[in-house]
Amino acid sequence: MPKGQPLVDPQDGLTTRQRRNRPLVIVNTGDGKGKSTAAFGLALRAWNQGWDIGVFQFVKSAKWRIGEQTVLERLGALHEETGEGGPVEWNKMGFGWSWTRKSESEDDHAAAAAEGWAEIKRRLAQERHDLYVLDEFTYPIQWGWVDVDDVVTTLLTRPGHQHVVVTGRRVDPRLVEIADLVTDMHQVKHPFEQGQKGQRGIEW
Amino acid sequence: MPKGQPLVDPQDGLTTRQRRNRPLVIVNTGDGKGKSTAAFGLALRAWNQGWDIGVFQFVKSAKWRIGEQTVLERLGALHEETGEGGPVEWNKMGFGWSWTRKSESEDDHAAAAAEGWAEIKRRLAQERHDLYVLDEFTYPIQWGWVDVDDVVTTLLTRPGHQHVVVTGRRVDPRLVEIADLVTDMHQVKHPFEQGQKGQRGIEW
Repeated sequence: MPKGQPLVDPQDGLTTRQRRNRPLVIVNTGDGKGKSTAAFGLALRAWNQGWDIGVFQFVKSAKWRIGEQTVLERLGALHEETGEGGPVEWNKMGFGWSWTRKSESEDDHAAAAAEGWAEIKRRLAQERHDLYVLDEFTYPIQWGWVDVDDVVTTLLTRPGHQHVVVTGRRVDPRLVEIADLVTDMHQVKHPFEQGQKGQRGIEW
Repeated sequence: MPKGQPLVDPQDGLTTRQRRNRPLVIVNTGDGKGKSTAAFGLALRAWNQGWDIGVFQFVKSAKWRIGEQTVLERLGALHEETGEGGPVEWNKMGFGWSWTRKSESEDDHAAAAAEGWAEIKRRLAQERHDLYVLDEFTYPIQWGWVDVDDVVTTLLTRPGHQHVVVTGRRVDPRLVEIADLVTDMHQVKHPFEQGQKGQRGIEW
């Protein structure tokens, strides 16, 4: 990766230092793999900087524990024990609903997602974390469980210096518009197409 | 992310279990961010499974220490101390050369890259690691420092159960052809375009 030279000279009245440290809204979207994985990789860097990390996982079954959760929570415990890195809090929003929407009680799931977003709003107002990973947050937005205009306004007006990463397919264009960095992960070739199921250590 | 249902029923004579556990060649390419970050996120999962992880970083200055290195090496040390997770070895191949090719002694860098690849070949033959991260390995291939046919043959004939992840832009089509999983990270929007430099915790 290049060390990051700007391509244009912005006329925004900010110093380079101010601009460099501007808090970011980052979106990882697309039909390919790596959206969440890259977000959790970013959390590694953040931990190493001593940042306070809040993960808000908006899908997958509550019993579905991905490897990243175990490791990031272990790193958070290491911070408690030794002061290395930063604290990590992992939150599962909703309760066992999945993006395939096969669940029965959709109303409950919608309410749980809305409450999850309300909690994130409270924390942003309190400047609780340095990095927020809103994993698979595009789905509750897409399904109308969370109002995208509210998300956009909240992110644009968030106080202090809080980075926010959103992952998921089919991101709303209004979120793209206000994001600082948007990456589309495109699937070129995938073993599922060749009849292979996901495997431990690779998929979770 | 879906739990991974195959789209077709393969006629390859393998059981589901054999197929599920087939070792993978994974390529993260494209002009966007997240190629390396997703690879290191995958290493988190691998560590959690107790896999032996070898990282081979093919670019960036030798003094350039990214956050992922600190954290993954810390996780490797944790494995030594407590038995949690798996061992991690982080190798910097070459010595201070960068993908911008601004360095003076290109011959030295080519030789260092070739020797780095030779070391990886030896380890694959010995089945030394469970997961190999060949970070930014597309560049020495692109520049002719490492022979792509040798890479393809080595990967196709590697023994045992070794997963290999390759990252970098402009991947050679022959590598795509033999890969099991290829993701193109496409840059939709990037703060560098808006005159912002990279920042600590986000870029490294």
